[in-house]
Amino acid sequence: MFTVIGERINTTLKKVRAATENRDADYIRGDVEKQVAAGATYIDVNAGARIGHEAEDMKWLLSVIMETTRLPLCLDSPDPAILEMAYDMVDQPPLINSISLEKERFDPMIDFLKGKECRIIALCMDDSGMPQSVHDIFSRAQLLVKELEAIGVARDDIFIDPLIQPMAVAAENGTMAMDSVEKIMKELKGVHTTGGLSNISYGLPQRKIINRIFLSMMMARGFDSAIMDPLDPKIMATLKTTTMIQGNDNFCMNYIKAVRAGEIIA
Amino acid sequence: MFTVIGERINTTLKKVRAATENRDADYIRGDVEKQVAAGATYIDVNAGARIGHEAEDMKWLLSVIMETTRLPLCLDSPDPAILEMAYDMVDQPPLINSISLEKERFDPMIDFLKGKECRIIALCMDDSGMPQSVHDIFSRAQLLVKELEAIGVARDDIFIDPLIQPMAVAAENGTMAMDSVEKIMKELKGVHTTGGLSNISYGLPQRKIINRIFLSMMMARGFDSAIMDPLDPKIMATLKTTTMIQGNDNFCMNYIKAVRAGEIIA
Repeated sequence: MFTVIGERINTTLKKVRAATENRDADYIRGDVEKQVAAGATYIDVNAGARIGHEAEDMKWLLSVIMETTRLPLCLDSPDPAILEMAYDMVDQPPLINSISLEKERFDPMIDFLKGKECRIIALCMDDSGMPQSVHDIFSRAQLLVKELEAIGVARDDIFIDPLIQPMAVAAENGTMAMDSVEKIMKELKGVHTTGGLSNISYGLPQRKIINRIFLSMMMARGFDSAIMDPLDPKIMATLKTTTMIQGNDNFCMNYIKAVRAGEIIA
Repeated sequence: MFTVIGERINTTLKKVRAATENRDADYIRGDVEKQVAAGATYIDVNAGARIGHEAEDMKWLLSVIMETTRLPLCLDSPDPAILEMAYDMVDQPPLINSISLEKERFDPMIDFLKGKECRIIALCMDDSGMPQSVHDIFSRAQLLVKELEAIGVARDDIFIDPLIQPMAVAAENGTMAMDSVEKIMKELKGVHTTGGLSNISYGLPQRKIINRIFLSMMMARGFDSAIMDPLDPKIMATLKTTTMIQGNDNFCMNYIKAVRAGEIIA
């Protein structure tokens, strides 16, 4: 099963920021309902944009979203105090976004995670910066898994993010991500891989076709989750078609159903 | 470099059959010009549909096509006598479509190929029928490469066709093709892999989206040629975008050029 982390409830997005400022519950509810209907597995919630208001904004967003859906949430904050508060509010084990190997982030996140019932996105980032090679990504993934297992986190609860970087910056950024995903899925058996797909197309025109083709290519190498927009109908059509080609759609029934519903168009 | 084998000049297609019967050179010329402009590497020529007329039809088609383009041709016939005649007509080393391990086809094709300057599509088919597993495909590929090398064919001149089979028939047909391509490209270093992409979607609705997503997934596993329709603008957009993501498009310039020409639309 592919894990779709719906990325839309993020106060860095203008409309979400305005809705959050104005406590416009209908807007948030409507967006979340659409993400659920489109097939999100988790709803990511990021309230970080209004400096000084993250706690109250997160609290309000969570209360509105939990009235709307029983789907588990992805709590997106670098601040363990915010995550503690959010963790206490939710009624289903959340996905935490995220831990990394950066010293300032790693220690407090490990303290937060100890004994918690949750899953975790682990970024292949350390204090030397963005990874520059498959070796960088894999060795960081290995260390993250080791440290998380040491505090009792199961591999099935770990989502490794290799940190997708733009093609516009370096021609090897696509293969670096794909080769890393394959190596992680083969050699760290049991973990998941995820990431923000749209980074790949940053700085290029017609970004969405790049994002969805990259999704299929990454899935062909083992990628089994993405942080993405479930309301982009073409990327969801790509996800369903790719899943069918992978053999994970009995008798192609979900594909055929989606075609009948007008969701997949050649 | 990805090798596009343009599949449109085939007398089993109604319009091509009619144009061939009526010796309508303008129609054939127009189609070939469009395939060349769209980026075909080879033009496949199959004159097999009109029983008893294959030799004369092939001869006429080749003469028309060679007036139109200097692109090398892919000579598509099971009959070595037709291939001999066609081989003598062309002025550039052709791609021969195809040899297989079926006894009736193998021996005459090996005789034909000896000492010829050409490349060859080698089908993973033997007298027991279509392959049923990655093991079937790989062991047949291995044998084909061994036999072709024995008569002096270079690996760079061999295009292994794993025989893509429909998802509608068995859920593992997609992964069987992809896993085989990866194994062939890794373990029979230097050969190419090709195949008729559209077989994957046979019997399913909205076939073209399946074909083009499958192309990206196959390329992510090493596939470096396809027998396809270069006049399908969306599959060509997919090919260009996938090539860019693979890092084979310096500074993404071909991608950006295609976007500017209106060929790639998100």
